[in-house]
Amino acid sequence: MRFEELTIEGRNAVIEAFRAGRTIDKLFILENCQDGPIKSILREASKQDVIVQKVSRERLDQMSQTHNHQGVIAFAAAYDYATVEDILKAARDKNEQPFIFMLDGIEDPHNLGAIIRTANLAGAHGVIIPKRRAVGLTSTVAKTSAGALNYTPVAKVTNLTATMEELKKEGLWFVCADMGGDTMYNCNLKGPIGLVIGNEGEGVSRLVREHCDIIASIPMKGDIDSLNASVAAGVLAYEIVRQRALDK
Amino acid sequence: MRFEELTIEGRNAVIEAFRAGRTIDKLFILENCQDGPIKSILREASKQDVIVQKVSRERLDQMSQTHNHQGVIAFAAAYDYATVEDILKAARDKNEQPFIFMLDGIEDPHNLGAIIRTANLAGAHGVIIPKRRAVGLTSTVAKTSAGALNYTPVAKVTNLTATMEELKKEGLWFVCADMGGDTMYNCNLKGPIGLVIGNEGEGVSRLVREHCDIIASIPMKGDIDSLNASVAAGVLAYEIVRQRALDK
Repeated sequence: MRFEELTIEGRNAVIEAFRAGRTIDKLFILENCQDGPIKSILREASKQDVIVQKVSRERLDQMSQTHNHQGVIAFAAAYDYATVEDILKAARDKNEQPFIFMLDGIEDPHNLGAIIRTANLAGAHGVIIPKRRAVGLTSTVAKTSAGALNYTPVAKVTNLTATMEELKKEGLWFVCADMGGDTMYNCNLKGPIGLVIGNEGEGVSRLVREHCDIIASIPMKGDIDSLNASVAAGVLAYEIVRQRALDK
Repeated sequence: MRFEELTIEGRNAVIEAFRAGRTIDKLFILENCQDGPIKSILREASKQDVIVQKVSRERLDQMSQTHNHQGVIAFAAAYDYATVEDILKAARDKNEQPFIFMLDGIEDPHNLGAIIRTANLAGAHGVIIPKRRAVGLTSTVAKTSAGALNYTPVAKVTNLTATMEELKKEGLWFVCADMGGDTMYNCNLKGPIGLVIGNEGEGVSRLVREHCDIIASIPMKGDIDSLNASVAAGVLAYEIVRQRALDK
C-alpha cells in the first residue's frame, strides 16, 4: 500500500499516472481545453470512470503547487481501493458473517479516518464509499485512520443502492442510523449486516434509506439534533458487536 | 453565553478583560519583562489561577494578529465555564442520578467538541476538563459541539483526582475506558457515574486511573490499538445509556 503525496500536475505526469495504474480520485481540466494530450487524458479518465471537473484557470492556479500544471491536475488516492468482492472474501476467510460499513457521502476526512479506525476495531470486514460527493482516501484520512487503512479494505462504488441490492443477494441486511426508527437496542442486528452511515449535514439520502431493511435510532436525550457522524458510526457499530457477542 | 474571537493583545486590553470578569484560558508574557503593568497583569492572573507562560519575543510576534502585543497576549475562553456544583445541580434539577464526563487531557478541539456533543445527547449533566495540558473552550470547540455548549455545562478544574474524590463523596463511581479491564458489557455502569476519557495519545494518566472504581474495556477485534477518543467516549457513554434504560 502507498502513503504519499497526492497531487499530480502536468500532462505527462497525469498520463503516466494513468498508465502506471494509479487510482485517480478526481481530475481537474482547464475548461475549453481540447487539444490532443487533453483528449487522451479524458479518454483514460472515462475508461476508468474517474470524476472529471472542468475548471477555470484561476482555480487550477490556486490548486497548483508546482505552478506548472499545463491545464491538468489529478488527485490520486493515498491508498489503493479494494473491491466489494475483496471485502466479502475477507469475511469468508475469517469464517465470519459479513459486517460491512457503507458510508453515504462522508465529506470530512477526519470523520472518514475515524470511521475506518472504528470499522477495524469493531471487526468489520470493510468499508464501502461512493465515488461522488464524498471524500476519498486522502493522506489526512490515512493519518486519522491510525493505521487501520493498512488492514481494513475500502471499496469505492459508483452507485450505492445498486451495491446494496447486490449485497442483499449475498444475504446481507442493511441498517441505517436515522431518526424515526426503532431504538437500536430493540432492533435485531445479528447476522450478515451492512451498517449505513449518512452524510454529516444531511444524514442518509432518501434513496439509500429506502433500500435499508432496518432504521435504527440512537437514543437522543439532549437538546441538539445529532451526534458527530463518526461517533454515531461507533455507537451503532458497537451495538452490533454487543448483539453478535450474545450469540456466542 | 459568548461565541466570538479569543485572542486579546496588549496591556490595557488584557487588564480590561480581567476586570470585566472574562475567563482567560492562558496568558503569554514576554520573558524577563517585569514592569508595573505586567506585574498587575500577573497579580490578576495569579488571583484567578490562570496558566501563565513566559515566552520569547519571536513566539509572541508569531502569535500576534495585531502586531502590537506590548509583551502580553491572552487567550480568552469562547464560552463561560461552569462549576462542578453547577453540574451536580443540573442533575438534581432533573431529578436524575449524576452522569458526568471527565476528560483527562483531550488536546484536539474537534475531539472536545464532539465529546461535548455526545455528552449532551447521551443525557450527561456536564463535562469536567483539567486546567493544564488540555484544550479549553475555543471557538473551534464551540463550532464542533454543534450547539451543545449552549446546553451542557463544562467545568475546568485544577486537579482532576481531587475533584474525583469530592465527587465520590457525592456518591459517584468513576469508570474509565482502558485496556486490561472487564469488557464494558459485563461492568455495572448504573447509578451516579463519572465517565473518564483519556488523552488521545497516552490514554488515562496513571494517577487518574488509580482513582477510578471500574476499568472498562471496549472490545477490540482489529489490528490497531485504539479508537479515536471521541468515538471511544461515545461507545462507552451509550453503554451507560443502555444499562440505565434497563432499570426503567
